[in-house]
Amino acid sequence: MNDASWHVGGLDIATAVGHANAERIEFREHDLVDDLMGVVGYSELLLLAVTGRSPLPEHVRVADAVLVCLADHGMQPSALSARLTYFSAPDAVQGALAAGILGAGSSLLGSMEQAGRLLDTIAAVVEGGAPEDEAVRGCVSSVLSDGGKVPGFGHRLHRAGDPRAARLLRVARENNVASDEVRRLELVGQSVGDRTGRTLHVNATGAAAALLLGMGVPWQLHRGFSVASRIVGLLAHIGEEMTRPVTPAVRDALRSASWLVEDE
Amino acid sequence: MNDASWHVGGLDIATAVGHANAERIEFREHDLVDDLMGVVGYSELLLLAVTGRSPLPEHVRVADAVLVCLADHGMQPSALSARLTYFSAPDAVQGALAAGILGAGSSLLGSMEQAGRLLDTIAAVVEGGAPEDEAVRGCVSSVLSDGGKVPGFGHRLHRAGDPRAARLLRVARENNVASDEVRRLELVGQSVGDRTGRTLHVNATGAAAALLLGMGVPWQLHRGFSVASRIVGLLAHIGEEMTRPVTPAVRDALRSASWLVEDE
Amino acid sequence: MNDASWHVGGLDIATAVGHANAERIEFREHDLVDDLMGVVGYSELLLLAVTGRSPLPEHVRVADAVLVCLADHGMQPSALSARLTYFSAPDAVQGALAAGILGAGSSLLGSMEQAGRLLDTIAAVVEGGAPEDEAVRGCVSSVLSDGGKVPGFGHRLHRAGDPRAARLLRVARENNVASDEVRRLELVGQSVGDRTGRTLHVNATGAAAALLLGMGVPWQLHRGFSVASRIVGLLAHIGEEMTRPVTPAVRDALRSASWLVEDE
Amino acid sequence: MNDASWHVGGLDIATAVGHANAERIEFREHDLVDDLMGVVGYSELLLLAVTGRSPLPEHVRVADAVLVCLADHGMQPSALSARLTYFSAPDAVQGALAAGILGAGSSLLGSMEQAGRLLDTIAAVVEGGAPEDEAVRGCVSSVLSDGGKVPGFGHRLHRAGDPRAARLLRVARENNVASDEVRRLELVGQSVGDRTGRTLHVNATGAAAALLLGMGVPWQLHRGFSVASRIVGLLAHIGEEMTRPVTPAVRDALRSASWLVEDE
Repeated sequence: MNDASWHVGGLDIATAVGHANAERIEFREHDLVDDLMGVVGYSELLLLAVTGRSPLPEHVRVADAVLVCLADHGMQPSALSARLTYFSAPDAVQGALAAGILGAGSSLLGSMEQAGRLLDTIAAVVEGGAPEDEAVRGCVSSVLSDGGKVPGFGHRLHRAGDPRAARLLRVARENNVASDEVRRLELVGQSVGDRTGRTLHVNATGAAAALLLGMGVPWQLHRGFSVASRIVGLLAHIGEEMTRPVTPAVRDALRSASWLVEDE
Repeated sequence: MNDASWHVGGLDIATAVGHANAERIEFREHDLVDDLMGVVGYSELLLLAVTGRSPLPEHVRVADAVLVCLADHGMQPSALSARLTYFSAPDAVQGALAAGILGAGSSLLGSMEQAGRLLDTIAAVVEGGAPEDEAVRGCVSSVLSDGGKVPGFGHRLHRAGDPRAARLLRVARENNVASDEVRRLELVGQSVGDRTGRTLHVNATGAAAALLLGMGVPWQLHRGFSVASRIVGLLAHIGEEMTRPVTPAVRDALRSASWLVEDE
Repeated sequence: MNDASWHVGGLDIATAVGHANAERIEFREHDLVDDLMGVVGYSELLLLAVTGRSPLPEHVRVADAVLVCLADHGMQPSALSARLTYFSAPDAVQGALAAGILGAGSSLLGSMEQAGRLLDTIAAVVEGGAPEDEAVRGCVSSVLSDGGKVPGFGHRLHRAGDPRAARLLRVARENNVASDEVRRLELVGQSVGDRTGRTLHVNATGAAAALLLGMGVPWQLHRGFSVASRIVGLLAHIGEEMTRPVTPAVRDALRSASWLVEDE
Repeated sequence: MNDASWHVGGLDIATAVGHANAERIEFREHDLVDDLMGVVGYSELLLLAVTGRSPLPEHVRVADAVLVCLADHGMQPSALSARLTYFSAPDAVQGALAAGILGAGSSLLGSMEQAGRLLDTIAAVVEGGAPEDEAVRGCVSSVLSDGGKVPGFGHRLHRAGDPRAARLLRVARENNVASDEVRRLELVGQSVGDRTGRTLHVNATGAAAALLLGMGVPWQLHRGFSVASRIVGLLAHIGEEMTRPVTPAVRDALRSASWLVEDE
């Protein structure tokens, strides 16, 4: 190794997140120990972490509702992946949690990302001077003509409407948060309905995306809120798998229920 | 689906975590939408998830302190893993978060597990009728004679004492939580000191383990609190990597700084 | 278990991958123990797994070259993530490997996916009756006009040409594999060059994508070959981290090299 | 940041794994492009990676048998985790593979680690001068008196004997590999049988551990071979989930089959 080039090239890492030295841990310009521990709650810290600013109390209430919302949905894919992984590798709880959160993707649990991006695009068009309804119609057209599904609407199980979405929107309204984003989300639903004749219901991830955007969380980080939320449910499932495992029954059922087909 | 046939077929999955149907999502015997969303905060939900009981307000305050405590420690292994992974795979934030939390293991971030297990063993010996100081000495001996390191003490960076630990213990005291567990943890430190002549400082994961045990969280799930906590810091780092990446500088530095040795 | 009840209950999982019962393990219509163990090598099995057909010997040779190609690239992001994770969680090698492979994304290591998709689109246009050069030009235009980067070309380190790509293309030629896909990949490079005036060099993931497509591996699974390949290098790094860790030096360097900036 | 201290402290990373610069990629003292690509197969590369030495042809044949052995076992936990994760996050194949391999733990798929450690301990006792049968009896006693299960024996499904184990042992014998380790493994089985009166059958992970140890692979890396092997089956399952998903049926079945119990 050439020391000189190392010096010239220099590893020089600027960060606004935080720093720790022997006496002190700084996080987002606060002393973690003196200013944050025992003072702020989890949701407040998370908003501070992601936006870089101390959040308003209304924002904390809305973030809490979002984080409660996606915590669990019964014995579903992410819960089952975590339980199966924990059963196989009980020596590594972190691995079971990781297996569970890896399911926060574009189809389930992580679709806030697509809804958030859509609302972000609409906001950019509006800021560029377009009337809101036109911006919405344009963005919806663009999604539909690419053959895509408009994100943030509909739910396989909650066909008559996702009760979590209605509740999230009410919490936002009561706290006067994200009114622009929520109105645009509803316009998106109407616009799709106008084109397709179907009534669309906002779902939990669509509503969550609108609320998070309204609090300044960039859509690229929305899945992080799903992950933080789902950790709660996963940990409950892992705790239960420890004492009353479902994996043996699932293994046997899968073995019995699966049968071979030939590929043509 | 015909319930009867399931029971005949034999897949029969009992869970006390929760359930979702078209109208309703139940979580730990509460209606997620009506009773929890907009009502409880993240830490309250997490304690409910893990213990199955609605926590006392004092417990929520202590859990919040634990969850704030481990959120970030500067540009360290878990943060760097998440940032490197995000840079390589920006299409999958969930993967970057997973890479970060996979570092919650026995050496860093996850060592609450070992400290919690030790305190749990001591508690069992005490419940079996042994005097507390004897129980502590016996368990410490057993760890040391296996050549092990007593978990929950000392920190590579915070050599003069981990400021997070002191703060956690104060929050616990003020809320009258985990006094047995904290006293035993301190007895462990004294017992090791008596044998080795060194002064040991409780570290953040040791203190957190005592507090969590005192609130009824089994040690096998303690790493889950590290994971929930660290998600906060990881998301801040990922957000920064998005706009001001460190990966290119780290790659170049690693390439320049690494040189080949021959294996003998 | 009563088979009939399953079918009534409705869990009915057809698979062409394989099945295991008490005596026998079947994989892709072969007896794993009698027909595959001791008979086929890893790369042959992987092609069989993914395509459902026993591969030609030429295909096995090409697959081996692809799997060797991406195994390691020095102390780079995926290797470092695995090493940092192993140091933090030495109790879970599987987690360190997972942290390493989570970096097989759209930017590094996983970009075979984008190159494969582009070549697949070109093939579809050609099959639809368009002349090949027109198909290539059209697809390239479409990528560039969306503001995208044409995948499969250029490398941050190997600026004068990626030696792995040249070697892969030679192995393919010698084995008479993927000639259509390779020709189209080269046409893509020329087409971009014609539009931008720059000379583009095929990189390792671009060449690998062409070869895998030519052997019938769908582009959606290309990253799986990166992952299988990189497991090799990661395991070498983890083995070294066990006995001669770099994490302590990297931690200290990061701590010293990182400094705080204020967010404006 | 103080440049001087950085220089003095120096990031100085010695590695025997490999290095890449603009023209050349070195891996374990070989030129990756000229000496390895198109020359060696996957299993040969993996042994080279892990042991640092070019393996004998016999070792390559045995490694291939090990890597084929654990590739798939039907629709089981790791396959299902990968499929559920892929269905939820089809944008990130690497995440689905990671979810699958995180199940290579102490209970399933990763138990080579415990068997390998046991055989390694026995070898150390023998090298210390003890007669082999005594060493075996001592180590078995120590496991059983700690209440543990002797690793490497028995299988939930293959109760009359694991056909993969018999095959692995035959391949090893034919290639004259790991005869000491295999003999000791069989002695372990006899010793347990003598104490408990039960006949134990070596299982696939027990046999694989013996073979890998005999080829110089340290037990701490054995799970890496499980992971490399299982990647093959997981990729077949993911490919099938893409075109013929099982997740919807599994979700519905889980929802119907799970019912709530009250925690007492």
